[in-house]
Amino acid sequence: MSGGPLEGVKVIDLTTVVVGPICTRTLADQGADVVKVEAPGGGDILRYLAAGSRSPAMSGKFINFNRNKRSIVLDIKQPEGMEAMKRLIAGADVFVSNVRPAALKRAGLDYESLSAINPRLIHCGIVAFGTDGRYANRPAYDPVIQSLSGVAGTFQRAIGEPRFVPMVMTDHITGLVSAQAIGFALYRREKTGVGESIEVPMFESMASFVMSEHLGAATFDPPEGPTGDGRLLSPDYRPLPTKDGYLTVRPNNNKQAFAFFDAVGRPELKTDPRFESSISRTINAADYFKVQVEALTQKTTAEWLEIFAKADVPAAGYNSIDDLLTDPHLQDVGFWNFDEHPTEGRIRRTRTPVTFRGGMRQETLPAPRLGKQTREILGELGFDDATIESMLASGAAEENS
Amino acid sequence: MSGGPLEGVKVIDLTTVVVGPICTRTLADQGADVVKVEAPGGGDILRYLAAGSRSPAMSGKFINFNRNKRSIVLDIKQPEGMEAMKRLIAGADVFVSNVRPAALKRAGLDYESLSAINPRLIHCGIVAFGTDGRYANRPAYDPVIQSLSGVAGTFQRAIGEPRFVPMVMTDHITGLVSAQAIGFALYRREKTGVGESIEVPMFESMASFVMSEHLGAATFDPPEGPTGDGRLLSPDYRPLPTKDGYLTVRPNNNKQAFAFFDAVGRPELKTDPRFESSISRTINAADYFKVQVEALTQKTTAEWLEIFAKADVPAAGYNSIDDLLTDPHLQDVGFWNFDEHPTEGRIRRTRTPVTFRGGMRQETLPAPRLGKQTREILGELGFDDATIESMLASGAAEENS
Repeated sequence: MSGGPLEGVKVIDLTTVVVGPICTRTLADQGADVVKVEAPGGGDILRYLAAGSRSPAMSGKFINFNRNKRSIVLDIKQPEGMEAMKRLIAGADVFVSNVRPAALKRAGLDYESLSAINPRLIHCGIVAFGTDGRYANRPAYDPVIQSLSGVAGTFQRAIGEPRFVPMVMTDHITGLVSAQAIGFALYRREKTGVGESIEVPMFESMASFVMSEHLGAATFDPPEGPTGDGRLLSPDYRPLPTKDGYLTVRPNNNKQAFAFFDAVGRPELKTDPRFESSISRTINAADYFKVQVEALTQKTTAEWLEIFAKADVPAAGYNSIDDLLTDPHLQDVGFWNFDEHPTEGRIRRTRTPVTFRGGMRQETLPAPRLGKQTREILGELGFDDATIESMLASGAAEENS
Repeated sequence: MSGGPLEGVKVIDLTTVVVGPICTRTLADQGADVVKVEAPGGGDILRYLAAGSRSPAMSGKFINFNRNKRSIVLDIKQPEGMEAMKRLIAGADVFVSNVRPAALKRAGLDYESLSAINPRLIHCGIVAFGTDGRYANRPAYDPVIQSLSGVAGTFQRAIGEPRFVPMVMTDHITGLVSAQAIGFALYRREKTGVGESIEVPMFESMASFVMSEHLGAATFDPPEGPTGDGRLLSPDYRPLPTKDGYLTVRPNNNKQAFAFFDAVGRPELKTDPRFESSISRTINAADYFKVQVEALTQKTTAEWLEIFAKADVPAAGYNSIDDLLTDPHLQDVGFWNFDEHPTEGRIRRTRTPVTFRGGMRQETLPAPRLGKQTREILGELGFDDATIESMLASGAAEENS
C-alpha cells in the first residue's frame, strides 16, 4: 500500500541510463511497484557513469534516477531466466523498455509476444527514432538527438554556434513523456480492460518540442517570415551581469517596461518608438536586451532586486547549481531530505515536486544495489528455494545483497 | 468520439502563454475535449506574442499550442459569466489553471470552492513556486525559473557564463509534467470515484530535473566531490565543426573509442592512459573532446559519417531549425502535415509524436479564434438563446466567429 496515485500498479522496467529510468522513477515516486530487470555483467551502465560514488556500481546519478525501485538480475538468454521474465510479465500492468525494436523482437519481448502472455499489459517502447522512418533502429545517445532535433540548432541561431544543453535533456524529457503516456494508457485500460502498445520516439518527441516553440512564422504555408521566436533567440537572452553577480529581469507589459526605464535612469526610452509597446519591444528584442545589459552593471544584484520590487518590475536572482543546495524556498518546502542508505550511508534526496492531495507515496525505497531483490522477487513469482539456488548457480539469475 | 486514450475526458482550461496550454494541448491531442476559457479584452496573451501571423490574435505560436481546443470568452467578474463557469465545472473531469493561488482563491476557483460544485473534479494548479515556501505567489516567467532552478547555472559551469536555453523550456517541461500528473489522477479516480487537487510548482519541478542530473558526488553527505556531471559540463560538449558543417560523434565504450582513434589517424591514443577505459575517458572528458575537435575539421560531415558508419562509431549529422522542415526521417513518419485553417489558410501541423496502438484521436480541431465557440458551448450548458444574447450584450460573454 504505497499511498500514491499509482498504488498497486506493477511495472517491469527493462531500461538503462536516463530515458527509461526517469520514466519508471516517476511511476515509482507516484506509488507504482517498479521491478528493474538488469542484465548480468554489471547491469545498468548508469551505475558506473559519472564521478562520485562510495562503492562500485552505485554512482550518485544512478541513485538519483533509481530510487523507489527493486532490482533483479536475470539472464534472459537462459531458459530459466526467460521463464522468470515471463512470470514477471504475466503479473504486470506495465512493461517499459528502451531497447532497440529489432533487438527487443529478437529477445521475444515485443508487444505481440508479451500480449500473448498478458493481454492487459501496457507495453511502452521508448525508441530513438519512430519505427516507420529511415532512422529506425539507429543507435542514439542524448547528444545525437540534441544534434538532430533542433535543440542544438536553437543555440546556433542565438549565439552563432550549435551547442548542447548541458543535461541529458532529450532523454530526460522523453522519459517524462513516456510516464505521461503510460498514465493515459492506464486510465483507458480501466475503461476498456484491454492492454496497449505505446511507442515514444525521442527524435519526434523533441522535434515536436522544439518546433512548437520555433516554427513561428513558418507555421503558415507559404511562410509569413522566418522560423524562430526572435525574443528567445536574442544573444542577450540570459541572466545579465550586475556589479556583483547576475540578475534576471523581465519587464513585459508597458507598465513594467516604463517602470524599468525610470528605475534605470532612462526615462527618455518610454517614448522611443522601438520600445513604446509590447509589439515594438518584441520586434526590437535585441535592442531592448542591450538597454538592460548596459543598465544592470551599475548596481549590485541586491540593490536592483530592491529597486525592481518597489517599482513592481518582475525580477529574480540567479542560482548556480550549488546555490540550489541552500535556496531558502527549497528549504521551506522540504525539497532536500536526508536518508540513510543501507549500504551507501547518508545521502541527499529530492522531494517529489508534484503533490497530490488525494495521497502520496508514503514508504520510500533506497536505490537498489545490483540484484538486491533477486531472491525476494523470484520467491514472489512462485519459484521454490531449490530452483532459486539452481538459477543463481547457473547464472540465470544473480544477486548482490 | 475522439478515439484517443483520453476520449470522453472534459477539461476546463484556464491557462495562458505556454505552461498551461502545452499541458492542455497534450490532453487534447490524446482525445480530451478541452474548453479554453479566455478573459475579455483579448484572451491569451500568446495570441499576440511572437512574430508571424496572418490576422490579429492568431500568432503561429498560439496556433501550435492551442490546436484541438475550443475557446469561450467569459467575464467571470460578472455573475452570469461566473454562472457559466460554474456550469462548465459541474460537467468537467479536469480543471487546469496557471493563475497565482491567491488570485485563484479570490476568483472563487480554488479547489475547495470547485470541489463543492463537483466532488469528482481533478483540480490542477500549475504554480511558479510551491505554496508552502517563501516565494509563493511571486510572479514568474520562464526565464525567472531558468535563472533560479539551475538551468542557467549549467551553462555557467560549462562555458563560464549563465545562459538560458533558447526555448521557454521550464514552462514547456512543467506543462508536460502537469499533463502527466492529470493522467495519474484520472487513473486513480477510476478506482476511488473521488476528485483530487494537484499542485505542480515550476521551480521545484525544474530544480528536481536539474539536480537529478547534476547533484553528482553531492548526492552523498558529506559530498564525495563537487556537484555536476563533468562530461556534460565540458566546454566542448557540442556538435563539432567539420570542414563544411557540424557533426555529433559519441564513441562511448572501448570498442567505439578505439575505432574512433583509428578512424581519425590517432592510433597511439588507444594506449594513452587518459583514454584507455570508459572511466578514464569520463575523468578526462575535456581532453577527449579536444581530440575530437582537432580531428573533425579535417573532412566534411558526409565523409566522416561514412567513415564512422563503417567503423561502427555512433555519429549523426546536425539539423538547424530550418533543416527539420525537410528532414527525411520526419518525412517518412508523416511528422509534417498541412491543414486548411478556416480563417488562417494553409498551415503546417506537427504530428502527435507518441503513438497508442489502442487508438489515437481521429478528428482534429483548428486552433480557435478568440471566443469562436462561445455560443456553442453556452448552448451545451443549457443557456437558452435569449440568455445567451443578453450575456453577449452585457459582456459576460464574448464571441468572434
